[in-house]
Amino acid sequence: MNEAEFIAALARLPLHPGADGLRDDAAILGHRAGEQLVLTKDMIVEGVHYLPLDPPDDVAWKLVAVNLSDLAAKGARPVGLMLGYMLGDDAWDRAFLTGLDEAIRAFDAPLLGGDTVRGGGRARTLSLTAIGAADRVARRGGAKAGDSLWVTGTIGDAGAGLRIAQGADGPESLRSAYRRPVPRIAEGRALSADASAMMDISDGLLIDASRMAAASGLAVGIDLDAVPLSDALRDFSGDDESARLAAVTAGDDYELLFALPGDTQPPVAATRIGRLEPGEGLTLRWRGNALSLPDRLGFQHGS
Amino acid sequence: MNEAEFIAALARLPLHPGADGLRDDAAILGHRAGEQLVLTKDMIVEGVHYLPLDPPDDVAWKLVAVNLSDLAAKGARPVGLMLGYMLGDDAWDRAFLTGLDEAIRAFDAPLLGGDTVRGGGRARTLSLTAIGAADRVARRGGAKAGDSLWVTGTIGDAGAGLRIAQGADGPESLRSAYRRPVPRIAEGRALSADASAMMDISDGLLIDASRMAAASGLAVGIDLDAVPLSDALRDFSGDDESARLAAVTAGDDYELLFALPGDTQPPVAATRIGRLEPGEGLTLRWRGNALSLPDRLGFQHGS
Repeated sequence: MNEAEFIAALARLPLHPGADGLRDDAAILGHRAGEQLVLTKDMIVEGVHYLPLDPPDDVAWKLVAVNLSDLAAKGARPVGLMLGYMLGDDAWDRAFLTGLDEAIRAFDAPLLGGDTVRGGGRARTLSLTAIGAADRVARRGGAKAGDSLWVTGTIGDAGAGLRIAQGADGPESLRSAYRRPVPRIAEGRALSADASAMMDISDGLLIDASRMAAASGLAVGIDLDAVPLSDALRDFSGDDESARLAAVTAGDDYELLFALPGDTQPPVAATRIGRLEPGEGLTLRWRGNALSLPDRLGFQHGS
Repeated sequence: MNEAEFIAALARLPLHPGADGLRDDAAILGHRAGEQLVLTKDMIVEGVHYLPLDPPDDVAWKLVAVNLSDLAAKGARPVGLMLGYMLGDDAWDRAFLTGLDEAIRAFDAPLLGGDTVRGGGRARTLSLTAIGAADRVARRGGAKAGDSLWVTGTIGDAGAGLRIAQGADGPESLRSAYRRPVPRIAEGRALSADASAMMDISDGLLIDASRMAAASGLAVGIDLDAVPLSDALRDFSGDDESARLAAVTAGDDYELLFALPGDTQPPVAATRIGRLEPGEGLTLRWRGNALSLPDRLGFQHGS
């Protein structure tokens, strides 16, 4: 596909009214008073953030989902997407468009605009900017000493799914958790009024919980026993200490991690896994005893 | 530089308050009632949109300027920038940061956030999303029959500057017009109340004027004699018909092209170059006579 053909295909996807049919260089966003706008941007590189043989529709879905997960963590609903796309071969472009269409419809995140460029055979780089709106914005650094730490969904499925995508034998449901994550948009909106701190888990539960604690000027303690694992993950990797450590240090969960005062119950399905305390750093408990921390708490940028 | 070092360097640039020190995954934009938000995104690829030996500070400047020119064409002031950056070698990264700092300060367009990734030695791809705000948004498709067509500044300087950047002998002022364009932000804001149509000239005066006419459902006639050329360009390429045709089909001017009713004078320095008429298509006049159109009206995407 050339640029004109790809843009024509984009223009057949659900568009934000402000996209004006993608006929213009810029998108216009009318905006309601009293809302905050939330913006997030991700860039992914073939061979770095996804594999050349990953299904292109899944690459599109995940690019959208990962950005919308950042919006969800702020309590924002999606407003629209700006896509930066590097053209490659036609089959890949078409399959990417299919996955993009599925994600746009699934999450009600219409296309606002973007830029389509020729890559001249270079490794493909894609970029997405997601715009959201929130009545009240949650921050990762607002936790108070004594807050309980909660998490939505289950942890570690995507980490196991990555191993399955790389060739290990395991169930499709885990591979799908890796390739087709579902951002917790409704949960984020429901939680933003009460959560003193919130973020999404993208690099691993332990490292992201440490970041929330550090941003809040607090220590965090996590009960490894309490971390919710799916039945599929337990079947795949067991449920001992080392399986649980693998789950809490694997990335790509895209669940919400949030802090609530004392014994407040969350308005969404979630599991209490620990507590914020005065001090700094992370402590991990297993069957009531302190556990030494693994060398690697999750995926760290720049390392 | 690794990602953490580059992000730390970004955090020392002028930041929008909503960037929260780049500590978070998302930027928060408080927004005034009654304003429209304008969003634009560009992606540039090494070897496609800029040359590997182009000065990195100029690459940064131009990436910012080109996006802000899209905002200017809508009558919007810059609000902030989201940068997608692929790391490469340290010297390039540092020089890029210098140019980014210069552009951010020159155009009062603070950084809001973005994403920094490792490229693993791949051809560098950069992306920028610019967010602006306007009381009244200009569109490219609003021209009326009988409107006069105007242009700010001079045309063709950047086209000559590209030849100089590629090794031709010529003045620095023209090369600088190519490498360090200045978006017409103040002019765009001043014009948005009166212009019936406006856009920036990025791909060449003739092709962009044709696009404005097509979007407005009209024909456009341009007097090649009336097109403003700089003294530097006249010295460099002369002022005959072929020199003028080269100027009006060269890209990268980033001047504003706008339509005003009948004999209305613009509130900014500008030159009247033609007229919108009923019908469709482009006519070009030279010394009062119709001129056949050149084969190539400017840079066409996908060709």
